[in-house]
Amino acid sequence: MNDLMQYIKRVSKATDETLEKLLPPETSYPCSIHKLMRYSTFAGGKRVRPCLLMASYEACGGNFGDQKALAASAALEMFHTFSLIHDDLPCMDDDDFRRGKPTAHKAFSEALAVLGGDALCIAAFEILASIGRVDIVSEMARALGTSGMLGGQVVDIESEGKTVTRETVEYIHHNKTAALICSSVRIGAMLAGASDEVMKNLTSYGNNVGLAFQVVDDILDEESTTEQLGKEAGKDRERGKATYPSVCGLEESKRYARELTDLAWKDISFLGSKGKILHDMAEYIITRIS
Amino acid sequence: MNDLMQYIKRVSKATDETLEKLLPPETSYPCSIHKLMRYSTFAGGKRVRPCLLMASYEACGGNFGDQKALAASAALEMFHTFSLIHDDLPCMDDDDFRRGKPTAHKAFSEALAVLGGDALCIAAFEILASIGRVDIVSEMARALGTSGMLGGQVVDIESEGKTVTRETVEYIHHNKTAALICSSVRIGAMLAGASDEVMKNLTSYGNNVGLAFQVVDDILDEESTTEQLGKEAGKDRERGKATYPSVCGLEESKRYARELTDLAWKDISFLGSKGKILHDMAEYIITRIS
Repeated sequence: MNDLMQYIKRVSKATDETLEKLLPPETSYPCSIHKLMRYSTFAGGKRVRPCLLMASYEACGGNFGDQKALAASAALEMFHTFSLIHDDLPCMDDDDFRRGKPTAHKAFSEALAVLGGDALCIAAFEILASIGRVDIVSEMARALGTSGMLGGQVVDIESEGKTVTRETVEYIHHNKTAALICSSVRIGAMLAGASDEVMKNLTSYGNNVGLAFQVVDDILDEESTTEQLGKEAGKDRERGKATYPSVCGLEESKRYARELTDLAWKDISFLGSKGKILHDMAEYIITRIS
Repeated sequence: MNDLMQYIKRVSKATDETLEKLLPPETSYPCSIHKLMRYSTFAGGKRVRPCLLMASYEACGGNFGDQKALAASAALEMFHTFSLIHDDLPCMDDDDFRRGKPTAHKAFSEALAVLGGDALCIAAFEILASIGRVDIVSEMARALGTSGMLGGQVVDIESEGKTVTRETVEYIHHNKTAALICSSVRIGAMLAGASDEVMKNLTSYGNNVGLAFQVVDDILDEESTTEQLGKEAGKDRERGKATYPSVCGLEESKRYARELTDLAWKDISFLGSKGKILHDMAEYIITRIS
């Protein structure tokens, strides 16, 4: 996995440099919201989505670090950060810490966290539009909306404290988490001009990796300490969240994460050695628990 | 003004029919968020932005009711509704009523109001993208972001209870309200393929009308009853909001609204009779106080 760690570092660096350029400076009026946008975006995320986008872009013939791919990567991180800021609000998951730092509404204010989340979402659409590809704007809006991320988010909130079926958990995770991860992979391929057949396989890969990512997150919430997570551990259980471990137990959750990774690998076997980074990314996501 | 009232009715009807088609049905899973999106969008707004868009589109040679102009009008109302839902939240203006009906977080929940606002914003971008004009997506994102509506919103919140200058009130109103109204006029012209020169004049018109709209709103908050407004009257003063009447008094505010309307009329004088509806719209906005 040494190659992959190098790759993640390179993508993170390039994405952060792009975000640095594209986000409004903290000194720009009104300063408070621009400070919040940068505070949350540079809070130490692993840049998983940019890595998947760039790996997919390269696997389909794009060149590492092309401007359009970097702009799309930066936009994806901003959409992701927007969702985290709103997720953490007192009326939602009510989290005080994220990645070991106070959440946006704690470090600033609730009003500014609502507006700062909105601002990141809107600025990210502006960046996507600047790429000049209206199909990518559509793709992203679909992945984020009520038939994607926000739909999953609603059912997640509404399922709290209730007994839910495995199908409901699958719906939540498929939409809340996998939709945006899958779009990262798809947008990389779209930018590189991939064929419909390639797109179909990469979409399946993205969904499997995205689901695996959330199953692993659920497992980590049960098995890790607060220090390891950078946020309060065991909070899912405490709040009665609909998670895989809560509906099928830890062992079955681990088996399922493994199965999803195997399926993801099959999806990209057609890429041969060009799919190495995508292969290793799938492995990387699951090794967080092994 | 009889012609204008007919025009407003026609645009409202066409916009509402388009919204009816484009918004996800209430029966679509997860139902709660789709109910909220429709509840707030169909809460009885005056559809001022769609009227300005369509009037500008027609003045520049477009045909009433063209599909792209209607889709953009629907998107504008959704962006506007998104901003109202988040504005009304307890951590923001904390309003219980809007247009005589309970606000979204009162009728549903705070969590759903945050997510429902997000969902309207994202769905509106999806609709704009479906028009196929990436320049219109950019235009809209700029008008909504921190150098537009959200910037005004931040300074509005942060100015509460403070003594502010007329320049600060101007900044707030120019961004919080006028940016989106100005974009309505601009997008109509962009869809009709207006020249740079026409665009410049219509941009000035849009800014003047947008500012006048907010000055009038400030005056109405001071002079109307709660029944007339459909929301609690006198609330701006109670919360120490930065308004025109608070920094320059009622008489000067009325004079200024009149001046802005005259300026708006000058901006569109080049249109001659083709600018009749835009002319009457500017008058309509100010007659709410006369």
